[in-house]
Amino acid sequence: MRLRILPRNEQFFDLFDAAATNVVQGARYLHEMVENFDRAEELHKLIEETEHEGDITTHEIMERLNVTFVTPIDAEDIRDLAKTLDDVLDYIEATADRMILYDVGKPASYMADMVRILELAASEIVKVVGGLHDLKRPRRLLDHCIEINRLENDGDRVSRRALAELFRTATPMDAIKWKEIYEHVEMAIDKCEDIANIIESVVVKYA
Amino acid sequence: MRLRILPRNEQFFDLFDAAATNVVQGARYLHEMVENFDRAEELHKLIEETEHEGDITTHEIMERLNVTFVTPIDAEDIRDLAKTLDDVLDYIEATADRMILYDVGKPASYMADMVRILELAASEIVKVVGGLHDLKRPRRLLDHCIEINRLENDGDRVSRRALAELFRTATPMDAIKWKEIYEHVEMAIDKCEDIANIIESVVVKYA
Amino acid sequence: MRLRILPRNEQFFDLFDAAATNVVQGARYLHEMVENFDRAEELHKLIEETEHEGDITTHEIMERLNVTFVTPIDAEDIRDLAKTLDDVLDYIEATADRMILYDVGKPASYMADMVRILELAASEIVKVVGGLHDLKRPRRLLDHCIEINRLENDGDRVSRRALAELFRTATPMDAIKWKEIYEHVEMAIDKCEDIANIIESVVVKYA
Repeated sequence: MRLRILPRNEQFFDLFDAAATNVVQGARYLHEMVENFDRAEELHKLIEETEHEGDITTHEIMERLNVTFVTPIDAEDIRDLAKTLDDVLDYIEATADRMILYDVGKPASYMADMVRILELAASEIVKVVGGLHDLKRPRRLLDHCIEINRLENDGDRVSRRALAELFRTATPMDAIKWKEIYEHVEMAIDKCEDIANIIESVVVKYA
Repeated sequence: MRLRILPRNEQFFDLFDAAATNVVQGARYLHEMVENFDRAEELHKLIEETEHEGDITTHEIMERLNVTFVTPIDAEDIRDLAKTLDDVLDYIEATADRMILYDVGKPASYMADMVRILELAASEIVKVVGGLHDLKRPRRLLDHCIEINRLENDGDRVSRRALAELFRTATPMDAIKWKEIYEHVEMAIDKCEDIANIIESVVVKYA
Repeated sequence: MRLRILPRNEQFFDLFDAAATNVVQGARYLHEMVENFDRAEELHKLIEETEHEGDITTHEIMERLNVTFVTPIDAEDIRDLAKTLDDVLDYIEATADRMILYDVGKPASYMADMVRILELAASEIVKVVGGLHDLKRPRRLLDHCIEINRLENDGDRVSRRALAELFRTATPMDAIKWKEIYEHVEMAIDKCEDIANIIESVVVKYA
């Protein structure tokens, strides 16, 4: 009996690893897009493909959930986690899409700062999600959760300054556009924090 | 014993049916308001009345919850569902209210597109919520959940284009106003998706 | 055994009392800042300190949660409650920070109205959280939850009017700035309502 349950657990966690790796890939493309805005169209395409990959993984997790009776962690936590990993990529894609759609021109340096923070948070997500394989040793996993919280605070601070500069220097229309774009990066980072919070609560329940 | 529990279940589900029917009514009025903006004031009044009806139903569900020991689905899911159905109508009313309050003039065709999607999503909500009466046969119910997810994606796509056009053609002040209004329609559609997600998780637990 | 568990319960509830008292302190400083905008910098500092105090309390709740096996209410509800109390202060601090950072000048009277509502909602939070000590008598506690809901509706109404006036009278850039600030006050009030909702659901489970 136990032998049959254990591999099943691993399948869920492997899918989460794939989803997290995909998120960090999307964040990397977005960072590259912001730093090399002349290649924006090409990188936007890559982000769209990454997001599509992510949708497939999410779907796979949900399908597996519907046919699994004994899940390694609560079914609701699996759903939440899959959904929130998906959300990060959705916001990454939406950010890239808006930069092109609104025809904003080269991003200010604050945008690169924010996207760098998002990429760092996404890298922590890979570690946090990987930690699910060994819930018996949660110390490290919780350290990565704390690091994600710190990054979210950083992102918040940078985005406040970015908006203040925008309001001082841009036209009202550009202020509207960039505010919308900054907010999407912030939401992507917030979703990374939500993932950390879900995993923290899983640790509290199972460790 | 069983005979006493079953009717009680149905009472909750009947109240949810009433709440969902009310949501679709509100969405229809909003659609009509956007298509016939010269009747805006009159339709806004009807939407306010519909929202008030919804509040009464929500209140009834909550009151019943407080005096019921054995609920047909988890008490927390009942609360969440009632709350989120209420949220959809709140956003519908807030959208109508803002169009009048901000004195925006006749809506662009994108607004009609978005409100049409909201009306379709609301119609699916009626079906999804109706499916609670027969959780043993979840296949159909899940199909409607998928359709709501598809509609939410549609809404997202339309709203991106609507904003892009707005930023190309409107004054900054009109851009601010309409962005706010579009976002409220989007949030109403998002809440429809949240309802689908809650019901999906109920199905996972009970079916 | 019972003697050992009871004090442990009280420790959690005492920490929540401290967190709620801190929230109302932050709300009072924000109100004072808006009414006496020439002292904005000084009051912003006090709000930052209050927010920092709040972080310490939140951290203490989470740490205690990690070493407690039998919690007086569900561990997840404790986490949610601590997190949401923290969120209120975060939004209060973010509101104060933005007013300074965006160099907005003296707030319109609507801002004072909104912050007054936030202060009232925060005072209700103290009572609602205090009610956790005696979950056996939930009637009063639920009345305070209803009052918070009423205040949230009030805040919503005032903020709609505030925006309408802003769009009639301000420059596009000032409209963008103040809209952002009003939204932060609204989110602080929304989080007060979330706290009421969490506690209502705790009552449903335990009373």
